Amino acid sequence: MVIPSLIECKRDGGELPPGTWAAIVRAYAADEIPDYQMSALLMAVVWRGLSNAELTELTAAMLASGARLQFDGWAVPRVDKHSTGGVGDKTSLLLAPMLACCGAAVPMMSGRGLGHTGGTLDKLESIPGFSTQLALPAATAQVRALGCALFGQTPEIAPVDRRLYALRDVTGTVPSVPLIAASIMSKKLAEGLNALVLDVKAGSGAFLPDEAHALELARTMIDLGESSGVRTVALVTAMDRPLGHACGNALEVEECLLALHGEGPADLMEVTLALGAEALVAAGLERDREAACLRLQGTIASGAALRKLAEIIEAQGGNPAVTDDPASLPQAPHSAVYVARSAGRVVAVHPRPVGQGIIAMGGGRTRVEDGVDPAVGFVITVRPGDTVKAGQPLATVYAADAAGLQAGEAALSEAIIIGGTAPAPRSLVSHRVSAQGVEIL
Amino acid sequence: MVIPSLIECKRDGGELPPGTWAAIVRAYAADEIPDYQMSALLMAVVWRGLSNAELTELTAAMLASGARLQFDGWAVPRVDKHSTGGVGDKTSLLLAPMLACCGAAVPMMSGRGLGHTGGTLDKLESIPGFSTQLALPAATAQVRALGCALFGQTPEIAPVDRRLYALRDVTGTVPSVPLIAASIMSKKLAEGLNALVLDVKAGSGAFLPDEAHALELARTMIDLGESSGVRTVALVTAMDRPLGHACGNALEVEECLLALHGEGPADLMEVTLALGAEALVAAGLERDREAACLRLQGTIASGAALRKLAEIIEAQGGNPAVTDDPASLPQAPHSAVYVARSAGRVVAVHPRPVGQGIIAMGGGRTRVEDGVDPAVGFVITVRPGDTVKAGQPLATVYAADAAGLQAGEAALSEAIIIGGTAPAPRSLVSHRVSAQGVEIL
Repeated sequence: MVIPSLIECKRDGGELPPGTWAAIVRAYAADEIPDYQMSALLMAVVWRGLSNAELTELTAAMLASGARLQFDGWAVPRVDKHSTGGVGDKTSLLLAPMLACCGAAVPMMSGRGLGHTGGTLDKLESIPGFSTQLALPAATAQVRALGCALFGQTPEIAPVDRRLYALRDVTGTVPSVPLIAASIMSKKLAEGLNALVLDVKAGSGAFLPDEAHALELARTMIDLGESSGVRTVALVTAMDRPLGHACGNALEVEECLLALHGEGPADLMEVTLALGAEALVAAGLERDREAACLRLQGTIASGAALRKLAEIIEAQGGNPAVTDDPASLPQAPHSAVYVARSAGRVVAVHPRPVGQGIIAMGGGRTRVEDGVDPAVGFVITVRPGDTVKAGQPLATVYAADAAGLQAGEAALSEAIIIGGTAPAPRSLVSHRVSAQGVEIL
Repeated sequence: MVIPSLIECKRDGGELPPGTWAAIVRAYAADEIPDYQMSALLMAVVWRGLSNAELTELTAAMLASGARLQFDGWAVPRVDKHSTGGVGDKTSLLLAPMLACCGAAVPMMSGRGLGHTGGTLDKLESIPGFSTQLALPAATAQVRALGCALFGQTPEIAPVDRRLYALRDVTGTVPSVPLIAASIMSKKLAEGLNALVLDVKAGSGAFLPDEAHALELARTMIDLGESSGVRTVALVTAMDRPLGHACGNALEVEECLLALHGEGPADLMEVTLALGAEALVAAGLERDREAACLRLQGTIASGAALRKLAEIIEAQGGNPAVTDDPASLPQAPHSAVYVARSAGRVVAVHPRPVGQGIIAMGGGRTRVEDGVDPAVGFVITVRPGDTVKAGQPLATVYAADAAGLQAGEAALSEAIIIGGTAPAPRSLVSHRVSAQGVEIL
């Protein structure tokens, strides 16, 4: 295998012959391909893309580079939901217990915050004592016992993806539909799933903002899932504004606890129920989405989902009392109400400055090794389309100190736009994509 | 300087702000940018190109990363000829002594074989004892004393180019007009020239085969030369077949010695005189090309050019007797005549398989550290357009052993195409490009 020739082939828009991507992944895992060749190859892929055959082979090889969760002979259908990343996107924390209450098993392997977006692991770790570092046998056992485990990518899962991801992060090779699809699916296929629901974000706060790319990513991941025997469905949802009110780790957990008490913001609940209904139908646990939706709502009304979350928290070392006492979550020592400087119509609440504001306040990372302050963030109660008066409260900033408050307020002044023109807000759940095609909702 | 952001800017087709390329070159020289980021950036440049401002800054920074030849206060005009690389392209060995005989000083810093193309240094080193490794002060002194020195890039000349070139060679990032132009010109501008003639190859054996790219490369290098005060002219010449008959290091030196005795092949002499005439006019040593051409021919007829070459060889440690006794060059122990398998019209003599055949016989490198066998190669007497009979000799293969003969014959059967259709051969010298524009010749 002559690596420069393979790079040249890809650079010139060619397709690598069958077996080549598998060989590349094996050689990279064995340290036989230096990073400087891999990064040039990755940039050529960002430029030229991958054929379906290349992508399928790359994904399978990344999956095969590591271990998989084993549920052999267990009849309970496994299902997961994965989001391509957003701001205020906390549906995983709701769906995991809700789906488990409906008879699904949810082996949910999540990630940390990336760029301006939040990560489920960081949110969970704001619960005092909660550990997301489960070994694979422990995670599997917990899924069998409780119907759910919430954990991070272990070193044995898709190790080549882990290395490639770190390389892509520092070489400008992240935004590529096939590379994103291969990275996500190599991990999701390691979960031993029967069904997978993808929440593909579109809008300015998504990694691939435009709808065409979001749809392409959805179709690409569905092909990869279905061809591996995993029933895969995607919803394209709005990320041109934050989802829900809370943005920031502990604040988002608190909003989830409110939601499981029946008091969730309407947009958060709409997206959560839409994704959950797809999951139950795809897993074969309900025949149609309407019935699935009612059943999911029932898990909240009965308190079952909240109790399931408490069980999970307890099993993973956290204090389950937090579910009835959100005040036991980390609290920021400083807060300030952010008010409208002028009257008018809110035309945009941009998610990127909100996410970057959380990082500026210490609630996200600029380097992998950074710690995060779980308590900081925003609760933004205003939405695009609202009409506001001058002086009206729009949001609250939660910060560690006065400098944090200032950074948070600066972020909000960039994020919340009153007056002027802006594109109309995206439809909250705009498309449903499945192996059968795309439906506009 | 946040390297990933710079890579992303280039990847998305943007222009890096003034000062950025200079800072990148300085940081790379100081080992502050890892190769895996540099190779991704280079691939993004292959994809998106460079603006004129970026290219000028990059070239100047690469030049400034090293030393320059110093001819301060010396009135003799310095001129060089540089080729973008071909097969059988031996004009440098003729032009260096011929130009020196006409009153020019020729500080000719050359390279080694690259890919399927030959290199002047490898050819010179087939002369027993000849050393191409001159230190800068020695090279400068020899130019002042003899009017010419033939040497390799020293470690102090454009060191960043040297490192970037090695990286590009193994990461599929060679074929980029701005990167090629910056690499060539950062070295040529270090020679302390008044004038530079570029031989830009076009056709299947060139690194950038198509004419549009050749013209773009010519214009790009002329801009870089002229803006540094070096009168720069380019000729686009044919590399859809080898130049001259001999291909292979010692065989090419032998052909040059024949040429300096007045017996060079017509195509080789036409290209050599065309380039040399441009050089003399650009250096201000002749008013027009016709007069320059006559003067150059005179250096052969008088024997002056051959004597000058002998002086250079002697000064650089070689045996000058080789100029009158080509048989003292390394001789291959095996040879075989290659004959036409069928009658017909020769429609192509492809240069790439010829060059690759030389490598297969051990006369070129597949890795930087490889040695070369100077004696092996081809003498190909047939030309596109010739009509041949079955059994007619077309070429001679010179090899180290029977396996080499077989490899050489296989290469010729791929290179020499009898019958069928092929594009018409390119005009030998097709375009003249100068700061005033492009002339079709």
